[in-house]
Amino acid sequence: MKPWKQYTPELIVDLYELTMAESYFREGMTGESTFSLFIRDYPADRSCFVSAGLESLLQILPDFRFGAESIRYLVSLGKFSKGFIDYLRRFRFSGSIRAIPEGRVFFAQEPILEVTGPIIEAQVIETLVLNVIQLETMLASKAARVSSVASGKGLIEFGMRRTHGVDASLKAARSSYLVGFQGTSNLLAGKMYGIPVFGTMAHSYITSFPSELDAFHAFARAFPDNTVLLLDTYDCIAGTLKAVEVAIALREKGKKLLGVRLDSGDLTDLSRKVRLILDEAGLPDVKIMASGNLDEYQIETLQKGGAQIDVYAVGTRMGVSSDAPYLDISYKLVEYEGKPVLKLSTGKKTWIGKKQVFRFYGADGKMDFDRVCLLGSGKQEGEPLMELVLERGQRVRAPESLLEIRARFSEEWEKLPEIFKAVHHPGHIYPIEVCQSLKELDSKAARLKWHEEVEERLGNRMVAKR
Amino acid sequence: MKPWKQYTPELIVDLYELTMAESYFREGMTGESTFSLFIRDYPADRSCFVSAGLESLLQILPDFRFGAESIRYLVSLGKFSKGFIDYLRRFRFSGSIRAIPEGRVFFAQEPILEVTGPIIEAQVIETLVLNVIQLETMLASKAARVSSVASGKGLIEFGMRRTHGVDASLKAARSSYLVGFQGTSNLLAGKMYGIPVFGTMAHSYITSFPSELDAFHAFARAFPDNTVLLLDTYDCIAGTLKAVEVAIALREKGKKLLGVRLDSGDLTDLSRKVRLILDEAGLPDVKIMASGNLDEYQIETLQKGGAQIDVYAVGTRMGVSSDAPYLDISYKLVEYEGKPVLKLSTGKKTWIGKKQVFRFYGADGKMDFDRVCLLGSGKQEGEPLMELVLERGQRVRAPESLLEIRARFSEEWEKLPEIFKAVHHPGHIYPIEVCQSLKELDSKAARLKWHEEVEERLGNRMVAKR
Repeated sequence: MKPWKQYTPELIVDLYELTMAESYFREGMTGESTFSLFIRDYPADRSCFVSAGLESLLQILPDFRFGAESIRYLVSLGKFSKGFIDYLRRFRFSGSIRAIPEGRVFFAQEPILEVTGPIIEAQVIETLVLNVIQLETMLASKAARVSSVASGKGLIEFGMRRTHGVDASLKAARSSYLVGFQGTSNLLAGKMYGIPVFGTMAHSYITSFPSELDAFHAFARAFPDNTVLLLDTYDCIAGTLKAVEVAIALREKGKKLLGVRLDSGDLTDLSRKVRLILDEAGLPDVKIMASGNLDEYQIETLQKGGAQIDVYAVGTRMGVSSDAPYLDISYKLVEYEGKPVLKLSTGKKTWIGKKQVFRFYGADGKMDFDRVCLLGSGKQEGEPLMELVLERGQRVRAPESLLEIRARFSEEWEKLPEIFKAVHHPGHIYPIEVCQSLKELDSKAARLKWHEEVEERLGNRMVAKR
Repeated sequence: MKPWKQYTPELIVDLYELTMAESYFREGMTGESTFSLFIRDYPADRSCFVSAGLESLLQILPDFRFGAESIRYLVSLGKFSKGFIDYLRRFRFSGSIRAIPEGRVFFAQEPILEVTGPIIEAQVIETLVLNVIQLETMLASKAARVSSVASGKGLIEFGMRRTHGVDASLKAARSSYLVGFQGTSNLLAGKMYGIPVFGTMAHSYITSFPSELDAFHAFARAFPDNTVLLLDTYDCIAGTLKAVEVAIALREKGKKLLGVRLDSGDLTDLSRKVRLILDEAGLPDVKIMASGNLDEYQIETLQKGGAQIDVYAVGTRMGVSSDAPYLDISYKLVEYEGKPVLKLSTGKKTWIGKKQVFRFYGADGKMDFDRVCLLGSGKQEGEPLMELVLERGQRVRAPESLLEIRARFSEEWEKLPEIFKAVHHPGHIYPIEVCQSLKELDSKAARLKWHEEVEERLGNRMVAKR
């Protein structure tokens, strides 16, 4: 099942993509272009990213068409020529895409993905490419931090109720599973991606019964093999004593209480008290789950404080990437008709031309540095990161399974030096080298542009004098 | 066209809604319940909210069904009894909803929406209700701040490329239009909601031509009545001189250059220089549009700094509500089988029972305070805010048009005292009174619960001693 199919993706487009396209069409600009997608800078506390979103994109692009309903809408705007509308009726994305596969670690200032194709086509898909890659990469990068800091503990994604819509909830579940979570509370994601689903009860369940103990027993009757009791509806310690009672009743039936959940209060203190009570009652196997405003910062504090928590349920703050709810991601034209293309405006550097990223490892097998080079500029020793994934508009290989991508991330994270995994102020920037060939091309293009500008300005002055 | 119809909404559900439901089903708990939706507290810099999302919800609920494919998935989980699965096959939401209409201003701690119905039904829709109302209310509340601070200027929503998925992009466009924006760049939102669409060119357009001037002329050829030239690809002032040249050429053909756009640099300084050049060149009608990391904070600074900007294009930061990317929104059981229901855990207050919110105005017609009362607890003088919108699972009136809601917001915002509109640290909390009847009910329920707890704990201790 393809979640994205539920949209008609051809209008996931900012209007200006089509006004530009109309002009390209009128001017007969059918030349081949390359656009480069990259993240300009790190949000606070970040020093790497995890690539995600490519599979979503590859599911959409081969079938990207302007359907009859969309064409009618575009005609109704009265902005486009009949010739261009006819062009849109026949529109297919016929270009190619090279990209870093999902689940790899990458860094600011290096290309994640490059689109090569006729300029209209590569321009029309801009909004879609940005939206898909930014959301999933942002979520996977956030979830990787949570996963890393909770290493060895269970992790479940719980964010569906406060993600920015359903798309985002699906991507939060998928991205977190990709980086090692055990599962999600999200049934739609469970169905669509085959991710294990978890969940037992809310406070409303407890309060709907005459007493907390009645609620606990009722739940254990329905799910004797899979009961996690929520302890903090009234008083957490009193709740624990009742959970012990239920666990004993289950034991008498040959069953086991799976766990208990804390959702508020001082989780370090409460989890230690609850663990003590459970252990004293001869229930060392009953797991303690915690939830409630958790993220990598909270979990680090809990872990360092000696909290006795076996499973973290992580929701809203991860699901909206609350401390970095967007990435400084750009999609820039870097080549047109075989000529590198330059933009000069203030404080924003874009490396021109088609590129490849090579990764170099130290003797210990850990990532050492990356090198960005012009594509095809001689043999490089490092490991190339970008792979051809779409050619003449079609996928060049079968989709990767989520489990494959998850395994790749797991290996990849092992190779990332610890200094780039710090939750607070990493303070280290992973080194990105730029090949000599790329630097030369860049300064040559800048000189050329400067000459053109001088000519244009002189021309301008003459016009202004008229 | 109903955007939400593209989902099968019945799996926009956290697993625990269904495990609780299975238990209710087993226990024969078919009683009527009421759940109350409210925002517990304000994010930083906020002192009010704008209600939105109700229409999305009302489009989904009457048709909420567990389809064959979803049933197969749920069966495959192996968690549910055959009887309960059969119940889900027949599931309809048969309850009622009272809610504050879209486009009204409301405050923390007062109910926005209350769902009354059989407890399983009201529980199953929890995740959906939370997700829909939180997203659109968050976005409308953010956009209202932008709209308020840019009062009198043009405003266009540009966020599609970095919103959290397509749902969120649609809701960002709709919410911003609801609070007074002129339109959006988002074609899908333009088509679905009938919102005017705007947009002209990107930097990539300029850089794909041999020169900036060629690009400007080419665009003016394609859109002689609707050209906004992007100035900052190479050098903003040089770009302005070229825009003047294009404007003069257009004038010679009886056309007018509509505007220019600045997307980087010191927007205050640049906009003043650009205005000066345009005015000197006899082009006082050419509008200046600005974009690039704008939000209410940036716009306030620009306005106070004397920037000469006619239209703000606001994107990512509004589209993700970057300074408050989620709301502290809850859906709490407040009544079951006619009995008010209480939760006691630390530091979180929920008013029990079915409620209504009454608004009181001052002599100047401005909002003075709100009063939260038990529903039906005698006649109140204020204006009731919550209205019946769904009864026996069906809408009780025709959908409101987006233009009606937009007009309502406009009137409503006029009535909100200025002190609650401040962009930074409003520092004033709008007064919410709680009726005596509600307070009495609450303390009575708390006493009752305390007695029950004591009994249970004594019981517990006896069990623990065994």
